[in-house]
Amino acid sequence: MGLQDSYTTVPSAEIDQRVARLKQALNEAGLDAVLITHNIGILYWTGTMQSGYLFVPAVGEPTLYARRSLERALGEASVHTVSLGSFSRFGATLNRDYPTLFGGAVAPRVGADLDTLPAATFLKLNGLVASAFSSSTVAGADLQQDSQPKQPSLLEDASALLRRVRMVKSDWEVARIEQAALALDEALQDALPELKEGISELEWIAHVEYGLRIRGHIGTMRLRGYNQEVLTGMVGSGAAAAEPTYFDGPAGGRGLGAAAPQSVSTKRFVRDEPILIDLGCCIDGYVIDQTRTAVIGQLSERLQFAYGTAERIMREAERLLVVGTRCSEVYAASLRMAADAGLADHFMGFGADQVRFLGHGIGLEIDEWPVLANGFDIPLEAGMVIAVEPKFTFPGIGVVGIENSYVVQPDGLPPRALTRTGERLIER
Amino acid sequence: MGLQDSYTTVPSAEIDQRVARLKQALNEAGLDAVLITHNIGILYWTGTMQSGYLFVPAVGEPTLYARRSLERALGEASVHTVSLGSFSRFGATLNRDYPTLFGGAVAPRVGADLDTLPAATFLKLNGLVASAFSSSTVAGADLQQDSQPKQPSLLEDASALLRRVRMVKSDWEVARIEQAALALDEALQDALPELKEGISELEWIAHVEYGLRIRGHIGTMRLRGYNQEVLTGMVGSGAAAAEPTYFDGPAGGRGLGAAAPQSVSTKRFVRDEPILIDLGCCIDGYVIDQTRTAVIGQLSERLQFAYGTAERIMREAERLLVVGTRCSEVYAASLRMAADAGLADHFMGFGADQVRFLGHGIGLEIDEWPVLANGFDIPLEAGMVIAVEPKFTFPGIGVVGIENSYVVQPDGLPPRALTRTGERLIER
Repeated sequence: MGLQDSYTTVPSAEIDQRVARLKQALNEAGLDAVLITHNIGILYWTGTMQSGYLFVPAVGEPTLYARRSLERALGEASVHTVSLGSFSRFGATLNRDYPTLFGGAVAPRVGADLDTLPAATFLKLNGLVASAFSSSTVAGADLQQDSQPKQPSLLEDASALLRRVRMVKSDWEVARIEQAALALDEALQDALPELKEGISELEWIAHVEYGLRIRGHIGTMRLRGYNQEVLTGMVGSGAAAAEPTYFDGPAGGRGLGAAAPQSVSTKRFVRDEPILIDLGCCIDGYVIDQTRTAVIGQLSERLQFAYGTAERIMREAERLLVVGTRCSEVYAASLRMAADAGLADHFMGFGADQVRFLGHGIGLEIDEWPVLANGFDIPLEAGMVIAVEPKFTFPGIGVVGIENSYVVQPDGLPPRALTRTGERLIER
Repeated sequence: MGLQDSYTTVPSAEIDQRVARLKQALNEAGLDAVLITHNIGILYWTGTMQSGYLFVPAVGEPTLYARRSLERALGEASVHTVSLGSFSRFGATLNRDYPTLFGGAVAPRVGADLDTLPAATFLKLNGLVASAFSSSTVAGADLQQDSQPKQPSLLEDASALLRRVRMVKSDWEVARIEQAALALDEALQDALPELKEGISELEWIAHVEYGLRIRGHIGTMRLRGYNQEVLTGMVGSGAAAAEPTYFDGPAGGRGLGAAAPQSVSTKRFVRDEPILIDLGCCIDGYVIDQTRTAVIGQLSERLQFAYGTAERIMREAERLLVVGTRCSEVYAASLRMAADAGLADHFMGFGADQVRFLGHGIGLEIDEWPVLANGFDIPLEAGMVIAVEPKFTFPGIGVVGIENSYVVQPDGLPPRALTRTGERLIER
């Protein structure tokens, strides 16, 4: 397999560029610093995923306060790394290490990843960051500089800013995603001969997952959303695929029970029903996302028409996925095409369980920005990587559709597909 | 496999008992209600894992405000379930549905699972719950009842209370854990013939995971801790097993790279090194946790002695795992035995990366309560299920140890082991 004694690390030049972009974003937003607590943010901006807190000032050098394992963090991080030490003294530590920020007369504006940070820890950190500033009153410094009363700073929600900085991928990141796409295609091709009548969704995904794992899949695709989980995606056949779920996607699948109410079920494949194969994997931290539709036998004319509509929407999305298009325009175009085909009620889920997007960014997480959705009016930029997934749900019958992941190219060039598996309906 | 067209649901009698215990705990703590936001809590107290908010008053009936999928939530939940409706009007909804609580003169004390709830959502919910109370001023009710000024309520941290209620398992839950233990033993026995020199940790765990998956493993073992993840555990050989990680366990393993810095690596098995096989799985939502040590060839005398010490600590833990023993006593006894064996520095990790516990509760999550640790002074109760995992780490050499999961029995009886795999060192 070639996977012997390998251990992928993040090049320090990547980290330097990412930190520079983050500092620029902080300056533009008027934030003085950001405190990053989530493992994926720490990985992205340091190169290590060890636990701790990453403090990035708008001016000056970031510091990773590593909790565990300090030894591994020191070996992997490309930013200045020290021991977190006593958590209860973290305020004093920040005051000592960033005297310009915390020693002045005005409380600094400090952001944090409040979309992931648990409230209990937030309340503690909030107090510690406030004390980092309050403790400077002991020194009595700069009190003459400003007539405003000292107010302890409060951690602001910098989630959107942090997600925006990560939207545009470097060549190195795109290459990681392509590697995941290749592994997925190989594992899928290996498993397709086992896609037979009488085999259950669970049994078949176990084949695919074995193939993904030996190629380096870390075992899960990381998701940012609270209470969401995805391991390798879903394989859903017939009515089971069309069952509504809590999962924030167009098709969740029946699942194995109330405690795993999405993805594969123990339902067996039967002839002439659509089989939705929405799979991905995560290698070196980067995920790919791809969907193909298969059938053992033949789909009804109605499902063939719906599948063809999904392919046509994909062609239109490809035309639109160029620098400058607003994300919301791509979604609006897909809604129009689904409506024109008479399939509006079935598009991206059915009825009350429809989701309101056509695609989503992928990278270290499966639910990155941008989202192809109403209100997401930012223009596409070169380097954005987006999974586009037009799908049609027919309750009691099944789900058909397709999903490719693309990287937006510079200079108005068409997007480059990162997913490797041939399009077309898979007929067996 | 017998896993055809099965979909496990939670018996409503289970839910009734769990809700009754929660209401009793709320009354004892002086809380008027709790708002549960985490999917595992919602599953535990309703029987469905669909997204939404579960409101449980200390007096009266709980309501699940389901967001997605309402249809599936209505079919699975054993508590009163309604549509969440507009999130921004959730305060008014609570005021309408619980007038006794929110319509009085004194703000109710409402707890929530602040150990998991992201801060950004916490801040929104906090405002909504406060408005549920404030909005009652419109009705002008009960103002004469209390001279205190009306204060908007703030969500309190009820994490500890919620975790305590879940510590004691029902017979139905124990049977689910035993089912996971059986699947793990079968998958392990299937894969042991492939444990050979030259095979990598990754390749071998892929065999085990295939066996777990076809037996119904949902693909991950859920963890409550922020930034922690575990899929099926770890297989670590020689020096790779002994590398320190962020993972809150005695042995994390080298992992596949900076983006997956724990669990299996691509290192191949070689002769005469310890291979730590710390595995589990999750079936019907319930996890099992088990560790065995293997060797291809023979362990050094020093490692054999350490392994024997781990077994002796396990025997002592079994003696102590009876109703009434304080959790901290079991940990203290293990520390004494490790020190008496001259292995204090190697016990439960090495040096700065040692963890400070001997075992942990398991159930819907792998990091449940109680913890066998200092400060955890509550007495053991019948029905608690605890994974006990004495291990010794030797940097550059490897990790040896053992882990069994037990359910505490009533009436001073010895604990019942739920893990199925025979003890003894696995020599090949």
